[in-house]
Amino acid sequence: MRTVPKKKRAVVLLSGGLDSATTLYWALDKGYEAFCLIFDYGQRHKREIEQAKKISRKANCKYNVVKIELPWKGSSLLDRKVPIPEDRGFSEMVKGIPSTYVPARNTIFLSMALSFAEAIGAEEIFIGAHQFDSSGYPDCRPEFYKAFGEVIKMGTKAGHDKRDISIKTPLINRTKTQIVKIGSRLNVPFELTWSCYRGGKYPCGRCDSCRLRAKGFKEAGLSDPLLMG
Amino acid sequence: MRTVPKKKRAVVLLSGGLDSATTLYWALDKGYEAFCLIFDYGQRHKREIEQAKKISRKANCKYNVVKIELPWKGSSLLDRKVPIPEDRGFSEMVKGIPSTYVPARNTIFLSMALSFAEAIGAEEIFIGAHQFDSSGYPDCRPEFYKAFGEVIKMGTKAGHDKRDISIKTPLINRTKTQIVKIGSRLNVPFELTWSCYRGGKYPCGRCDSCRLRAKGFKEAGLSDPLLMG
Repeated sequence: MRTVPKKKRAVVLLSGGLDSATTLYWALDKGYEAFCLIFDYGQRHKREIEQAKKISRKANCKYNVVKIELPWKGSSLLDRKVPIPEDRGFSEMVKGIPSTYVPARNTIFLSMALSFAEAIGAEEIFIGAHQFDSSGYPDCRPEFYKAFGEVIKMGTKAGHDKRDISIKTPLINRTKTQIVKIGSRLNVPFELTWSCYRGGKYPCGRCDSCRLRAKGFKEAGLSDPLLMG
Repeated sequence: MRTVPKKKRAVVLLSGGLDSATTLYWALDKGYEAFCLIFDYGQRHKREIEQAKKISRKANCKYNVVKIELPWKGSSLLDRKVPIPEDRGFSEMVKGIPSTYVPARNTIFLSMALSFAEAIGAEEIFIGAHQFDSSGYPDCRPEFYKAFGEVIKMGTKAGHDKRDISIKTPLINRTKTQIVKIGSRLNVPFELTWSCYRGGKYPCGRCDSCRLRAKGFKEAGLSDPLLMG
């Protein structure tokens, strides 16, 4: 009788945007059994949650939606009274940290992913963060992921038992253009992804996230299927 | 006109047990304005949540209860089908990690506290973890808190702006006996604290948490007001 080798398990943080969708397809391409983790944390662009579910289903992956009710705000992505910055130049984006920064968001997401990974015996956590074509968020830099790796080693049963869970950030040094190209090669269903911070019926085209996405597609020489009627 | 100096803000993780209550009173004694953070994470001993609220009110502190619905279990504290270990000797407790370990619990709690601290401009996060008289949990050791400190520095706007938020673990090297003595000196309302993992009407007296509490009071030469009718 032939034994089918058991696939390695991975938790994939899936926001519903094109970076996380590309990361999911990357993990699948590497042969992982992916368990998607989707967060409903009070974001304005709730729409991305539905898109993330659709992407998981399209990729034939199990998913969990975790609801986190933060009683505090501190971000224009959580607080509708604070305007979302728009029409910013790309050089401007990398300079400071804009109001769309959500306090400790990726730390919260990773900590939940870590709990999930321990509970199901996953060996990796995938996250689609990247440091260059982003809005200058500190929790999208490699130094942060390195520091979190030490937390895993020191603060979990997995670390204690020398069964380390590692964080994989395959896109960390990629530009948006490169991400679009990789996603295209991996057949990521871009038409299901949602990037706009506003979460209206159509992408606003003016927030950082829309602008970076448009730049990525343009420079990759591809059309964004989300914008095609 | 005399200017009243503004108090430093601190987020205090409050479970409702005697360690976290003592930590809260410690922070207040040091002059902090304390904001308590209480978690409803599906623990069996839900009773501790009500006790934590009572302790916050007694101490005249603001509090937030954050509900976290973990779709996974992986712990006897979350899963009623898994028995809670009982009647274990104290030397046995420090040997392995028991089934009451909740995957990445303190990492999740700290990440939420960090988000809260950033949102309200708090400078410290207090947690009542201690490494000796506990059940050998890896996320109760100083190495873990040191590693998390690096995450704060690397992954937050506060760290980026050089306004570091630090983690304070005043009880980390204290025995349960010392904690009872400190709490007694600070007038912690021990009668409001709840330690039992089972969360029944009365403490079970047999789980690790009950046994450590009893040992602490006995060796401190004090009576536990919770057990007095």
